Amino acid sequence: MRRINMVATMRALRGGPPIGLTELAARAELSRPTVEGLVEELTGMGWLGEVPPQAGHMGRPRRLFRFRAEAGHVLGIDVGASSIRAVVCDLDGEPAGRHCAAVDATTGRAGRLAAVRDATAQALAAAELTRSDVMAVCVGTTGVVSSSGTVRLSDSLPEWTGLDLASEVGRDFDVPVLVENDCNLAALAERWTGVAQEVDDVVFVLSGMRTGCGILIRGELHRGRRGAAGEIGALPLVGWHRAPAHLTEYPRLPEGTPREQVGALVFTAARSGDPAALEAVDRFARDLAEGIAALVLTVDPDLVVLGGGVSRSADVLMEPLRRHLDPLCLEPPALAISKLGDQAVMLGAVRHALDHVDARIYDIDAPLSAPAPKPA
Amino acid sequence: MRRINMVATMRALRGGPPIGLTELAARAELSRPTVEGLVEELTGMGWLGEVPPQAGHMGRPRRLFRFRAEAGHVLGIDVGASSIRAVVCDLDGEPAGRHCAAVDATTGRAGRLAAVRDATAQALAAAELTRSDVMAVCVGTTGVVSSSGTVRLSDSLPEWTGLDLASEVGRDFDVPVLVENDCNLAALAERWTGVAQEVDDVVFVLSGMRTGCGILIRGELHRGRRGAAGEIGALPLVGWHRAPAHLTEYPRLPEGTPREQVGALVFTAARSGDPAALEAVDRFARDLAEGIAALVLTVDPDLVVLGGGVSRSADVLMEPLRRHLDPLCLEPPALAISKLGDQAVMLGAVRHALDHVDARIYDIDAPLSAPAPKPA
Repeated sequence: MRRINMVATMRALRGGPPIGLTELAARAELSRPTVEGLVEELTGMGWLGEVPPQAGHMGRPRRLFRFRAEAGHVLGIDVGASSIRAVVCDLDGEPAGRHCAAVDATTGRAGRLAAVRDATAQALAAAELTRSDVMAVCVGTTGVVSSSGTVRLSDSLPEWTGLDLASEVGRDFDVPVLVENDCNLAALAERWTGVAQEVDDVVFVLSGMRTGCGILIRGELHRGRRGAAGEIGALPLVGWHRAPAHLTEYPRLPEGTPREQVGALVFTAARSGDPAALEAVDRFARDLAEGIAALVLTVDPDLVVLGGGVSRSADVLMEPLRRHLDPLCLEPPALAISKLGDQAVMLGAVRHALDHVDARIYDIDAPLSAPAPKPA
Repeated sequence: MRRINMVATMRALRGGPPIGLTELAARAELSRPTVEGLVEELTGMGWLGEVPPQAGHMGRPRRLFRFRAEAGHVLGIDVGASSIRAVVCDLDGEPAGRHCAAVDATTGRAGRLAAVRDATAQALAAAELTRSDVMAVCVGTTGVVSSSGTVRLSDSLPEWTGLDLASEVGRDFDVPVLVENDCNLAALAERWTGVAQEVDDVVFVLSGMRTGCGILIRGELHRGRRGAAGEIGALPLVGWHRAPAHLTEYPRLPEGTPREQVGALVFTAARSGDPAALEAVDRFARDLAEGIAALVLTVDPDLVVLGGGVSRSADVLMEPLRRHLDPLCLEPPALAISKLGDQAVMLGAVRHALDHVDARIYDIDAPLSAPAPKPA
């Protein structure tokens, strides 16, 4: 019962402004003496803090308490083909330190894991924190990821298929390391802080030089039995597999254009009216639409969010995409462009790690320990 | 608090064998005096009943109580193209009376609604009950159904698109009339009493002279924003739209074969080795596989259940279906054949109506009334 009351107290303070004991008791539906005892205990553990009384307050100053978001931190990591991003955030999701490192797309398993370790260390150093301050870690990666954090299949990262990424990253941490498909995390990020905050069933489509999908149902990640939900790109009948080729085969592409710059180049040319670029974008949009239509007709989501490289070229892409997509669906689906840019996966990793911490805080069947594991 | 304790008491008895007050108190985590008072009240309302003491019981006979499944009834209706089925079940889902009427596939709106009314009356008469004994009604129909029970789109029933079916059937009842897509209900039935009882994410595929799909996610119906989840058949890129034609175009089909007998006829011929029939079944399986693959790659379900007419011909269909389906998916999906035959939709309607009744029983924010509304 005490643990249940503790959860009620934490819930009443988590994510909100500082409040006094009377209001806290009312919100947690507990007696004031009960709340007083719990607040004392949770303050002693480091979960709660007292706010100094406001200057100019009339009468006897009220004691105000708040959830100490700085009591713990989580680490979000995005392992991309040509970049590794890491961010350390407090328990409100506020960034305390971050790092982004470029890697070569051909980098193998050992080199990429070393880059992950380095980016993590840099982000922690920027936050003036150490590994022992971290309460949960989440890593986003391309590919089909098993529930235990092994990469079952990855087309785009060399030597990545079969990697037990949770164990590899977990070597450096005493806390849980979650591993999740990057599009799944991007979907979580859109609902947390992006364009999908008001809806529950979300199809996030990553589009650019590769295409992927993450699905939320009733606000929660839908991973599927083998972590392979949203892998519609594997169906040759719909055109995702051939979509990037329309961009790379754009005839006026300067020789030696790095792959990660191809999309921006073709969309820029299309924006200026170049007919060959407009044709390439039209074919790209048609193939993208086929896969999105299959997702829409299966899930009938509240919203489709389009992210990845193409989200910077929505002004060029939207017209042909709508023109190809709408006739394939029973009704035109709601479609929004991500504004999170290349931060989406990393932010989703933070959200996923925070959800893990919250599940621990709110788990009435387990004792609540102090926020961050302290170094020995 | 009393309402919460009432729910705990009802939950402890619902669906289980009769138990004594001591065990009931333990299961409901309530004091024995509290349970005694609640049992008395709920018995007075008609929700609970006392079981006669067992003969041969040693010592003072224990008082045993049970949930009175006969206290109320629900009505499940399946509006098909060529048949209307209705069943009245008690609150354990045990059938008390049923009726099945053949209708012509060309029957229009008024005629079909009259047939529904007639089948309902016949089922109630068989159960020796009246409309006022019914606590909830659920109607299954083909097509996309809005959350308020209007048929937004139906290809297979004449004059059915746009029909406010909930209001039409609701005219005869003072209780809620739920309307749901037939494949959605079949999916519920498979998880309730069919081959999907052990799993949470289910794709039910109805296959025969038409093809449809119902999806359960985390054990619950996934309807989608506009009730159009699972409508992958609308995507021309996957072959569901042309699948039945492979059967109707079987060259040795006797002239004038009624449409609803075509499938059985072709599958029977294939079973006996007829090459043209085997070819027709192979093409049918290929087109069926394309749509199933799109569903599997999107949802990655625990199980695909194949129902409808083809479920009686699994011995002929499974080999070509597997041969076409597995290469389209990342891994061969788990696939089971429905054993519910033509009862699936009706049973799913019963389950959906029972869930509605249970939600009312367990709703702690609303007072609990006596089970069945009595006639004035």
